[in-house]
Amino acid sequence: MKVNGRELRAVWWEPDAVCFIEQRALPHALRIGRARDWAEVARAIREMAVRGAPAIGVFAAYGLARAARGGEDLAAACEALARTRPTAVNLARGLEAVRAAAPDPEAMLAAARAYDEAEVAAAEAIGTHGLALFRKGTRVLTHCNAGWLAVQDWGTALAPVYKAHRAGLEPFVYVDETRPRLQGARLTTWELRQEGVAHALVADNAAAHLMQRGQVDLVLTGSDRIAANGDAANKIGTYGNACAAHLLGIPFYVAAPITTVDPQVATGMEIPIEERAAEEVLEVEGVDATGALHRVRVAPEGTPVANPAFDVTPHELITGIITEVGIVPATAAGVAEALRRAGAAQGRVPGR
Amino acid sequence: MKVNGRELRAVWWEPDAVCFIEQRALPHALRIGRARDWAEVARAIREMAVRGAPAIGVFAAYGLARAARGGEDLAAACEALARTRPTAVNLARGLEAVRAAAPDPEAMLAAARAYDEAEVAAAEAIGTHGLALFRKGTRVLTHCNAGWLAVQDWGTALAPVYKAHRAGLEPFVYVDETRPRLQGARLTTWELRQEGVAHALVADNAAAHLMQRGQVDLVLTGSDRIAANGDAANKIGTYGNACAAHLLGIPFYVAAPITTVDPQVATGMEIPIEERAAEEVLEVEGVDATGALHRVRVAPEGTPVANPAFDVTPHELITGIITEVGIVPATAAGVAEALRRAGAAQGRVPGR
Repeated sequence: MKVNGRELRAVWWEPDAVCFIEQRALPHALRIGRARDWAEVARAIREMAVRGAPAIGVFAAYGLARAARGGEDLAAACEALARTRPTAVNLARGLEAVRAAAPDPEAMLAAARAYDEAEVAAAEAIGTHGLALFRKGTRVLTHCNAGWLAVQDWGTALAPVYKAHRAGLEPFVYVDETRPRLQGARLTTWELRQEGVAHALVADNAAAHLMQRGQVDLVLTGSDRIAANGDAANKIGTYGNACAAHLLGIPFYVAAPITTVDPQVATGMEIPIEERAAEEVLEVEGVDATGALHRVRVAPEGTPVANPAFDVTPHELITGIITEVGIVPATAAGVAEALRRAGAAQGRVPGR
Repeated sequence: MKVNGRELRAVWWEPDAVCFIEQRALPHALRIGRARDWAEVARAIREMAVRGAPAIGVFAAYGLARAARGGEDLAAACEALARTRPTAVNLARGLEAVRAAAPDPEAMLAAARAYDEAEVAAAEAIGTHGLALFRKGTRVLTHCNAGWLAVQDWGTALAPVYKAHRAGLEPFVYVDETRPRLQGARLTTWELRQEGVAHALVADNAAAHLMQRGQVDLVLTGSDRIAANGDAANKIGTYGNACAAHLLGIPFYVAAPITTVDPQVATGMEIPIEERAAEEVLEVEGVDATGALHRVRVAPEGTPVANPAFDVTPHELITGIITEVGIVPATAAGVAEALRRAGAAQGRVPGR
């Protein structure tokens, strides 16, 4: 995707560093980060300077390639990178792809690059398949950021939106702000504005109401891990939206590359849910009228907090899963079919 | 309720002003506001220095009594006060009660005081009836603030919690932060801490997940207007919680005094939904580490926003309505029964 005329991806390899868009600085500043070794990659993932399940998979892959080039302990690097965040399975996928090419550093870098390009191609294919859900003026609700900042170059949930926009279908996007970290308010709005897609930001609380009032034609979200039965983990709040969409009969689609599927996990209830720091709920960061950045506390000091970062939407509430090999039902058969098609295309079954 | 040993209500009459807790300053500062005439009362309601459907009903009642004492145009004052916010019907109820005693200023003040005390008594009775839903350690989810800052002295949704706490049942409350204005994070946490009730603040997005994981026994919310068929308008986000509770089979109760019932409105779809300013979503106010207040913007400047302040939960999703005359089903028959009991108790049918 282009930003101010410059072609950018969420993460990319340079000879002396793995570079990334510092997502914590957006939308107030576009800043490029440089992770010079795998430990800096790990820190950037843990601190969510780079986030989005597919993006951290690619980032970790390059991080492991970096460790190989530096002659470091690959097993230790791999384990530490895998441990940075627990919910997204793509992290493991990216690492596996690169580890399979060990120990030659150049082969490992080539594997990371191939993994990266495969994710870009998958994201674009998700856009092409998802485009079938759009008509002129389709109004989408999306949650969190599943655009190109989260998924190299295209996004998952937003890939069909970008395809529809470029096809002249004039989609409209309601953007959940996505507390606590506000990825919708900070990142999705920024992406949509760069691309010129019409949108409105809403408090997460407004999503069900907009659906009830007939203002949403389609809900599109990404996923951090899809179980063998079609249950999907995604950013906290996704499940609540799915409940409302289900009761109202509004199509609810999950968009994700096959690398997001974890056939080792039978149902969504087995997916580990990351619990993050209380400060994410207690504090909010933003700019004042002069553009100066402040972090402010909104609740009484020391207020106890529960802060689960993800939730699981049971497959019964998911209309379909948009993958790079087509839209499949959110069922064990649908997931198996997607894995089969992807395996046939790549000569292997991912995750097996 | 006591705050640091001092007995306080959300609003009260003094000879030279209608006094109120300045809710926009909480939880960072406890500040008392003074509205010296009805126009200042109207402004404080419009700007949400005082909010909560029953509280603004009492506040407006005192505002009209103030207009009478000042010899002002009562019809104009009444109309302006009624227009301050569109969704809560209690505003009209409080004004009706005082207007019925016109033109004698002392009679009007007496009517406002009677209305105030009736609301306090109703809130306490809601607490007593709602207590029946509690066992030892019941875990409640609540949305927005329906405590004593919103409803004189006891609250609606929180009144049963306070009763359960004083009865030694050790209730636990998950507090939705309630974007965009964060009444849960700022007000409900503050109230619960004052009273010593165990609680955890959560992003609104976490509510459905906590319900799914079996961490919520009971959902309790207030209401701004209840239609004749039992549909209930309440703070935006309530409906989404009701959808999840319904699918999961978790009891979902609305707590409200009879003054919240609007028998003139057949269904919730007729209740006007207030659309508020974009800044409420784009900006957040809080204190930095030094205690200094800042208002920060979290999204790109000029981002388009939709900001409906309320939503409507259809009666099918409401387990019951907790009123001062008992818990009734959220049906036309249940609402009619509550109105009948209240009319029998007061010798009149409210709103007729």
